[in-house]
Amino acid sequence: MTTLESPGPTIGVVGGGQLGRMLAEAASPLGVEVIVLDPTPDCPAAGVARDQLVGAFDDEERIHDLAERADVLTFEIELADQDALERVREATGVPVHPDPATLRTIHDKLVQKRELADAGIPVPPFRAVEDAADIREAIDDYGAPVMLKARTGGYDGRGNVPVESRDDAEAALEAVAGPAMVESFVDFEREISVIAAKGYGETATFPVGENVHEAEILRETIVPARSSEPVLERAREVGEDVLEVMDGRGVYGIELFETPAGEILLNEIAPRPHNSGHWTIEGAHTSQFEQHARAVLGWPLGSTVLRAPTASTNLLADVDTTTPARLANVERLLEEPTASLHWYGKREARPLRKMGHVTVTGGETEQPEAILERARRLREAVTFRETDQESN
Amino acid sequence: MTTLESPGPTIGVVGGGQLGRMLAEAASPLGVEVIVLDPTPDCPAAGVARDQLVGAFDDEERIHDLAERADVLTFEIELADQDALERVREATGVPVHPDPATLRTIHDKLVQKRELADAGIPVPPFRAVEDAADIREAIDDYGAPVMLKARTGGYDGRGNVPVESRDDAEAALEAVAGPAMVESFVDFEREISVIAAKGYGETATFPVGENVHEAEILRETIVPARSSEPVLERAREVGEDVLEVMDGRGVYGIELFETPAGEILLNEIAPRPHNSGHWTIEGAHTSQFEQHARAVLGWPLGSTVLRAPTASTNLLADVDTTTPARLANVERLLEEPTASLHWYGKREARPLRKMGHVTVTGGETEQPEAILERARRLREAVTFRETDQESN
Repeated sequence: MTTLESPGPTIGVVGGGQLGRMLAEAASPLGVEVIVLDPTPDCPAAGVARDQLVGAFDDEERIHDLAERADVLTFEIELADQDALERVREATGVPVHPDPATLRTIHDKLVQKRELADAGIPVPPFRAVEDAADIREAIDDYGAPVMLKARTGGYDGRGNVPVESRDDAEAALEAVAGPAMVESFVDFEREISVIAAKGYGETATFPVGENVHEAEILRETIVPARSSEPVLERAREVGEDVLEVMDGRGVYGIELFETPAGEILLNEIAPRPHNSGHWTIEGAHTSQFEQHARAVLGWPLGSTVLRAPTASTNLLADVDTTTPARLANVERLLEEPTASLHWYGKREARPLRKMGHVTVTGGETEQPEAILERARRLREAVTFRETDQESN
Repeated sequence: MTTLESPGPTIGVVGGGQLGRMLAEAASPLGVEVIVLDPTPDCPAAGVARDQLVGAFDDEERIHDLAERADVLTFEIELADQDALERVREATGVPVHPDPATLRTIHDKLVQKRELADAGIPVPPFRAVEDAADIREAIDDYGAPVMLKARTGGYDGRGNVPVESRDDAEAALEAVAGPAMVESFVDFEREISVIAAKGYGETATFPVGENVHEAEILRETIVPARSSEPVLERAREVGEDVLEVMDGRGVYGIELFETPAGEILLNEIAPRPHNSGHWTIEGAHTSQFEQHARAVLGWPLGSTVLRAPTASTNLLADVDTTTPARLANVERLLEEPTASLHWYGKREARPLRKMGHVTVTGGETEQPEAILERARRLREAVTFRETDQESN
């Protein structure tokens, strides 16, 4: 029997960016409190969370403080320190979800790929890189180009270097500047993702989304993905298989490639709610953030049924240098029927920084292309540029 | 041109109960900050709002403090002090929406009815009550029973006394114990309500809901109301007419009677988001809370289109005496597909206190009765009673 009191259970979150903010927004209706740990005072989640502890993501003392005030710990960034989380769990008895072991696996892209391949998850051919010779060997085996990846710390394409020929191997290795792995370059038909939750004795998978990246940063997600039903079914299957490998409860963002032959290959996993799942807030019966709260608390998972065809688009800062965050023409977003604005509350706009997103839900008869087109027009109607603001 | 910065605009709210809490939940995605004024430390809205000022609803000094930190003031309770709000507006230049004049009109049910009747809004026959003779006269004119109402301070049926016969007039007047009015008792077919927003140069009306009261407390709302289309159209029309009379921007809850002949009569107006509009969070494209935030800020209003047939049911504390709030069997709410829990975070359960609500959205083919039935079963599956919790 689950009982709910006032105040309800508290989730301690390492990280207080937009994911922590949207988690807190989703937790409040359930009576669930959120406290975040983030180094930036007044971080995006601070205003809506019960409280913020100011400290580094790996500040074990502050993580300990967080645990003392929480019923369960989770994290919204891969930078969370798995060792510190394990020691705090040991010291306080407060559970951590997903398990820090999962974070350790995912943290190192080579370890991640090896573990997934071992479990039978389809992944592109890959190998460890010790020196430039390994890269040249990969080019010989897989064909050029190949993708050289930093084993740790990369996101939004940072740390990924395409290598076009054997001659570029040395330079690429220098660019990555650290432990690396190399992967066959997947000539994909489209990028899709499965947002999947592992709960207490159950799992739940959201409808498959299609992702549009530009310069390796996610621009848009369209749901349902414009793939064939067998491909979508296969993607969900791979998603479920990935959950089997993951240790601990929570929402996982599972990025996949669909090849021209309709094959599914795993790209990367995020052990947390994912940018490509933001559409669930309006588009699914349960949002990925509510689902994450339910999962880490061991509560029943919510319905993942699609409410309507949906497209979300990121609002990236279209600035050349860091400026105070100031979005002009926002009335265009507010006026658009069935569009929902999500503002992350970041104080500074930096080039290509994710400042917010907009979700557009469609009618039953509105084609995915039309919904996506509406979302794109909205994104293009607003700007963070000072000069554009003055001239408007 | 509307621009959005970080932090965004701040709404100062007099009152920090569940309405303030849901307003803060809805404001956060828009980048809008909410600060509440409430006498109860750690009031329901406190955890999710940017801040709470602790003070009485009529504490002019605290209202002044609130205004100093806000771009606009609003209120979530009729107990807000209209004179204090006017003086603070005068002193600080911070606008108040809706206008305190509207609050003054609505505060006194006799003044409210007179003003609405003068504006051509259909209301049940009513008159002022100075003494018992006025009540007897009303019975002679309208027929028994009549409804004696306290002119101020009543809500959820408090302050309303049905008078069955001329002989009961004295006792009824004593029970009300203050300035009163008397109204013809409306033998209604159903109670319906229109949630309507007055924005900057525009208005928007949500689909009409049907309300089920028990002992004068709202139990359920079903949308769309099970009335004929002409009746629903007439209800929306009356809602729009009411907005014409109201001064200042914001969301208004307009409670109506539908008579057996299909006539619409105004019952009461709340100058704020209303319990019978909670369904909009899941059931409409914009929630009444987001709509209120948009309205008071003078931002474009959002789409009020129905997303799906929807029923909401209040979780009232089924206790005999005040106890710590503790809802048992909450997994039944969490497990139910397409059900959404809203917990208000009140520390104490008191008899019939509104502790939360549950909304169930239906599929296209699910009949309103079936959705309502699901909502009722959920409500009946949970309890605040200690003894029931032990025996489960």
